[in-house]
Amino acid sequence: MDIAIKFGGSLLFNKEGDIERNLLQKLVEILKKNKNIKSIVTGGGLIARKYIDYGRSLGINESYLDLLGIDVSRINARLLIGLLGNIAYPIVIKTIDDAKLAYTLNKIGISGGFLPGQSTTTVTLQIAEAINIKKLIILSDVDGIYNKNPKLHKDAKKFNKISTKDLEKLITNSNENQAAAGEYRIFDTVSLQLFKRNEILVRLINGKNMDNLLNLLNDNFESSTIGTLITKD
Amino acid sequence: MDIAIKFGGSLLFNKEGDIERNLLQKLVEILKKNKNIKSIVTGGGLIARKYIDYGRSLGINESYLDLLGIDVSRINARLLIGLLGNIAYPIVIKTIDDAKLAYTLNKIGISGGFLPGQSTTTVTLQIAEAINIKKLIILSDVDGIYNKNPKLHKDAKKFNKISTKDLEKLITNSNENQAAAGEYRIFDTVSLQLFKRNEILVRLINGKNMDNLLNLLNDNFESSTIGTLITKD
Amino acid sequence: MDIAIKFGGSLLFNKEGDIERNLLQKLVEILKKNKNIKSIVTGGGLIARKYIDYGRSLGINESYLDLLGIDVSRINARLLIGLLGNIAYPIVIKTIDDAKLAYTLNKIGISGGFLPGQSTTTVTLQIAEAINIKKLIILSDVDGIYNKNPKLHKDAKKFNKISTKDLEKLITNSNENQAAAGEYRIFDTVSLQLFKRNEILVRLINGKNMDNLLNLLNDNFESSTIGTLITKD
Amino acid sequence: MDIAIKFGGSLLFNKEGDIERNLLQKLVEILKKNKNIKSIVTGGGLIARKYIDYGRSLGINESYLDLLGIDVSRINARLLIGLLGNIAYPIVIKTIDDAKLAYTLNKIGISGGFLPGQSTTTVTLQIAEAINIKKLIILSDVDGIYNKNPKLHKDAKKFNKISTKDLEKLITNSNENQAAAGEYRIFDTVSLQLFKRNEILVRLINGKNMDNLLNLLNDNFESSTIGTLITKD
Amino acid sequence: MDIAIKFGGSLLFNKEGDIERNLLQKLVEILKKNKNIKSIVTGGGLIARKYIDYGRSLGINESYLDLLGIDVSRINARLLIGLLGNIAYPIVIKTIDDAKLAYTLNKIGISGGFLPGQSTTTVTLQIAEAINIKKLIILSDVDGIYNKNPKLHKDAKKFNKISTKDLEKLITNSNENQAAAGEYRIFDTVSLQLFKRNEILVRLINGKNMDNLLNLLNDNFESSTIGTLITKD
Amino acid sequence: MDIAIKFGGSLLFNKEGDIERNLLQKLVEILKKNKNIKSIVTGGGLIARKYIDYGRSLGINESYLDLLGIDVSRINARLLIGLLGNIAYPIVIKTIDDAKLAYTLNKIGISGGFLPGQSTTTVTLQIAEAINIKKLIILSDVDGIYNKNPKLHKDAKKFNKISTKDLEKLITNSNENQAAAGEYRIFDTVSLQLFKRNEILVRLINGKNMDNLLNLLNDNFESSTIGTLITKD
Repeated sequence: MDIAIKFGGSLLFNKEGDIERNLLQKLVEILKKNKNIKSIVTGGGLIARKYIDYGRSLGINESYLDLLGIDVSRINARLLIGLLGNIAYPIVIKTIDDAKLAYTLNKIGISGGFLPGQSTTTVTLQIAEAINIKKLIILSDVDGIYNKNPKLHKDAKKFNKISTKDLEKLITNSNENQAAAGEYRIFDTVSLQLFKRNEILVRLINGKNMDNLLNLLNDNFESSTIGTLITKD
Repeated sequence: MDIAIKFGGSLLFNKEGDIERNLLQKLVEILKKNKNIKSIVTGGGLIARKYIDYGRSLGINESYLDLLGIDVSRINARLLIGLLGNIAYPIVIKTIDDAKLAYTLNKIGISGGFLPGQSTTTVTLQIAEAINIKKLIILSDVDGIYNKNPKLHKDAKKFNKISTKDLEKLITNSNENQAAAGEYRIFDTVSLQLFKRNEILVRLINGKNMDNLLNLLNDNFESSTIGTLITKD
Repeated sequence: MDIAIKFGGSLLFNKEGDIERNLLQKLVEILKKNKNIKSIVTGGGLIARKYIDYGRSLGINESYLDLLGIDVSRINARLLIGLLGNIAYPIVIKTIDDAKLAYTLNKIGISGGFLPGQSTTTVTLQIAEAINIKKLIILSDVDGIYNKNPKLHKDAKKFNKISTKDLEKLITNSNENQAAAGEYRIFDTVSLQLFKRNEILVRLINGKNMDNLLNLLNDNFESSTIGTLITKD
Repeated sequence: MDIAIKFGGSLLFNKEGDIERNLLQKLVEILKKNKNIKSIVTGGGLIARKYIDYGRSLGINESYLDLLGIDVSRINARLLIGLLGNIAYPIVIKTIDDAKLAYTLNKIGISGGFLPGQSTTTVTLQIAEAINIKKLIILSDVDGIYNKNPKLHKDAKKFNKISTKDLEKLITNSNENQAAAGEYRIFDTVSLQLFKRNEILVRLINGKNMDNLLNLLNDNFESSTIGTLITKD
Repeated sequence: MDIAIKFGGSLLFNKEGDIERNLLQKLVEILKKNKNIKSIVTGGGLIARKYIDYGRSLGINESYLDLLGIDVSRINARLLIGLLGNIAYPIVIKTIDDAKLAYTLNKIGISGGFLPGQSTTTVTLQIAEAINIKKLIILSDVDGIYNKNPKLHKDAKKFNKISTKDLEKLITNSNENQAAAGEYRIFDTVSLQLFKRNEILVRLINGKNMDNLLNLLNDNFESSTIGTLITKD
Repeated sequence: MDIAIKFGGSLLFNKEGDIERNLLQKLVEILKKNKNIKSIVTGGGLIARKYIDYGRSLGINESYLDLLGIDVSRINARLLIGLLGNIAYPIVIKTIDDAKLAYTLNKIGISGGFLPGQSTTTVTLQIAEAINIKKLIILSDVDGIYNKNPKLHKDAKKFNKISTKDLEKLITNSNENQAAAGEYRIFDTVSLQLFKRNEILVRLINGKNMDNLLNLLNDNFESSTIGTLITKD
């Protein structure tokens, strides 16, 4: 069954600012074996943040900074296409129509962001909807969704499963600066709206260790204990 | 000072399904005199709803139904361009780049929707951000924002002013089916995120009577009593 | 052998302005079974006429009204794509190049109108020529071509076969207002020119009853008694 | 008042196949002085005919041959743009939208053909309609419209004025091979349809001598004796 | 193994200016049998030179003249597509992305020039690089690379093999007017740079006799004695 | 008189990888005052090199690495557009046609690279040619052209003036790895070809100190002692 992946920008570079070669190579290996993955949306990561910071310090507005972030996410998409060779659609996906064409050609469509003011999670869902994908894996740098920020609270508890409704509450309560360019959280309120109107199953897993992805692909998507499953209600 | 307008689809057709000729002609008159209005985003209205209903009854998914709605909103935009003649950019705005080009040419840019899953209010804000417009007028079929639905509750009270934060609460509480295609409320949660990161002043007024628009343009945008002003905080 | 279809806008909506669900569903069934149909051009129908009437009453010129009609025909094309799923090229065909690409991908290409001043019959022929289709079925709301208007004359006689030359005479004699936007007859003089230079066989049949299409597909195209065959000479 | 020009391909090259340098230079001089000319459509001429003949002898179909002819007409358009410098829109006009943008920028829009099966006279009219031009000059290699072919009949009489209706009869009677690629007569039946629905005044003059154009521009368009005026009725 | 071909413009027309029908028909035959040829770049030839000469005599600058040459090379590409039918990608390749899409669809991509200031040899290499083609055949009107111009010197000696380095010296010494539009030699210094960074094997052969191509395809590409092999070092 | 600028990527970031804010702000100041500068081409710099290094270490080919570099140069172009506001054409220039349109609108056109295998100096010249700019300033991180590498040789002597011919010899002698992606020297052999066919005056100056640019703009372009002038012969 078709699967879409969001590949968080935070996974692309390590703290020293170097690219995560091993992680990328493992991802490529998995994609070459698993034929169900049809769409990948990459984030901007460290370099996007750099350009956005430069621009902001020079007085450029938030919408324009988003465009810089989108540009970087598309370079990351281009890099991934280069690594995947002929299983990928050879051109970075920039519109819903591109995504449909890639799917029609039975190639993995790879995109970055689409428009200012959107998270790449939203883009992932827009594409998934458009080509009727019902399973979505979000690769981020955390193990799942917690009741509190696990980096700050030792007693934070990971959910195995959470409903969109409960997730929405979590987000609303913690949502200080969601709208600044480059600061889109994994789940913004828009993407939650798209979850609600679809029967898409979403699982957030830690992509820092690519074995998680491999294991999940061999596991039952709904009952797996890897990461957190987000359900419509 | 530059102004953006969202022209709700509900204003285009009357209940019998006929176009609101007089209303459109007044709008055109106003636009020909007032040189500050630089961007207009039109909604889909009755005909969009028809196509969406047909499609849904035939089993088409929500994302695709949105595309049908966007198509209709663009025909409405095309119609408006035809009425405005050479003060309008001659081509329907479909991307942020188009909007910038129209602005560079000092023409009114007229667009419909952009992408599935977005309200046209979001589009209006994306364009306003991109070309640095700081005042936005939402023409809808209600007199302003009320504490309860004024169609159901006689004692509903109109706000002269409301903060994004308070508006967000109102929306969250009343938000049954925001995400279905064609059912986007005037303010969805996404557009609120865009409000927050900008210094854009937004005023929602009743466009059923175009005198409201004319009066507001001659009035002080912030202190006017026409409609409801939405403030950042 | 490859077949192109023109699907008249008059078939899409009934007199009450509602979409013809059953008819569309039967068409989709047929298209899913018959692999020879490679191109469908949809007309604008009732809603196109509405927009054109609005525009004309507001003083917009005929060329621009045609653009509105083309827009609506493209929404109808989009709707049909949505119904057909992955046997259709996922994007509305807007140019000859698009049509070729769809054909290359072995998908049904679906389009509306192309340019102001053209009938959709002309578009159907332009596409058929471009991808070397030699059989064309025109689905309209009449049973065939008559020597007089059958709605006005009880003694009107249907032709089983008519040459382009004789058809041309018929058209020239009855052709009061062919050039107004939205009023293109099934055969205009342009499409006749395209008939003449090709070896394309054209059959006009009544699409109000989709069994006609089904029967024709199982019948001998040239000798069938369904509708009227138009021959080069 | 705005004027559109059709510049017949037959004017570009002499019988030896060399370009008509002097004629082009005079045309450029006129265009640099006369600010009313807003649109020029160039034909394909000798080289178009060559490519079409090659293609036909190699078995390529008529529609495809038309594309070759359109390509050549666009090179001719490109050449003219090069000669006109910054009074011309710098890119060859390929769509109605391009034509509108050029007009919006107050530059002369220069195009070749648009689609297979159309004469460049039709293109000239489509553009004229789209940007509301009401006067059209057709530069061809004959002095006007005659009651018989003046190259064959010594007693042929030139019309000073002819109605679309009468012209239509003339064309229908003499119209042996109008539809073959590259063989479009100055007036085909399509362009006559477009004449009919517009209030466009058309004058056909001999462009072999550019003084005709210069004189006409200084003369009264309707009452001038240069060439033949075509009237709606 | 995939092969790219540069088809020199000088092969398309004979000295009388007529198209080389037989040569083209043989090329088409070969392409229909040999499935390894994935990309063909056509030059402009005689007609390109004509337009460039006209333009230069009318004072147009070199960059613009190049655009005219590119236009003609694209018509030649279009002609070839028409001859090849459905083994060719149906649209002229104008960008690297187009080339990738054609390759993805397993069709022969056919292009003319890309940008002013480039030889079509450079374009051939840019495309070969982009789709990882490692063998390139240059069809020109000479038998190979000589130590002196064989048209002027009877004792000129053909190389069976030459390194890029030695070729570079040859070019630098003979390179009078390489940069004028339409005068690009078979190897300019840019294309040599691209040779150097790739492991692409290049063989220049005489295309005036298509048997050379046929024989080379059946021969060992590296050790063949047809034409001259260019090696990286 | 119109001026084009190449803004080397090496000027954008300091050795720590941070953007050169002050330098950019001074550039913007100069551009806002000097109305003659019509085109700026930005390089990729440090971040381009990073992506290229990543890609190369992961086995991606040189052509594809160039695309990554072009992408980064376009982000740098986007950043500059953001800083310049409405004196810049709002969209990154990606084709010669874009460049012409920007020039037609009297805006500064800002671009990055165009195609794999080209230096941005070549792009600068392609644009300059296309819009008839006759003066070109190359902002790099060296003071001019030396007879030897000044970083290695204390006795290296700067030329005040050098002919293309002499420059070509210098380049050929020192040109170890010109063709690897991201390693294009300031002058490659292609750009020299373009120099030769134009009457464009080129001056290379040190952009690390923006006073050089300011002083040059106030100085006599040909006789100035800032940097090195490159002459046709």
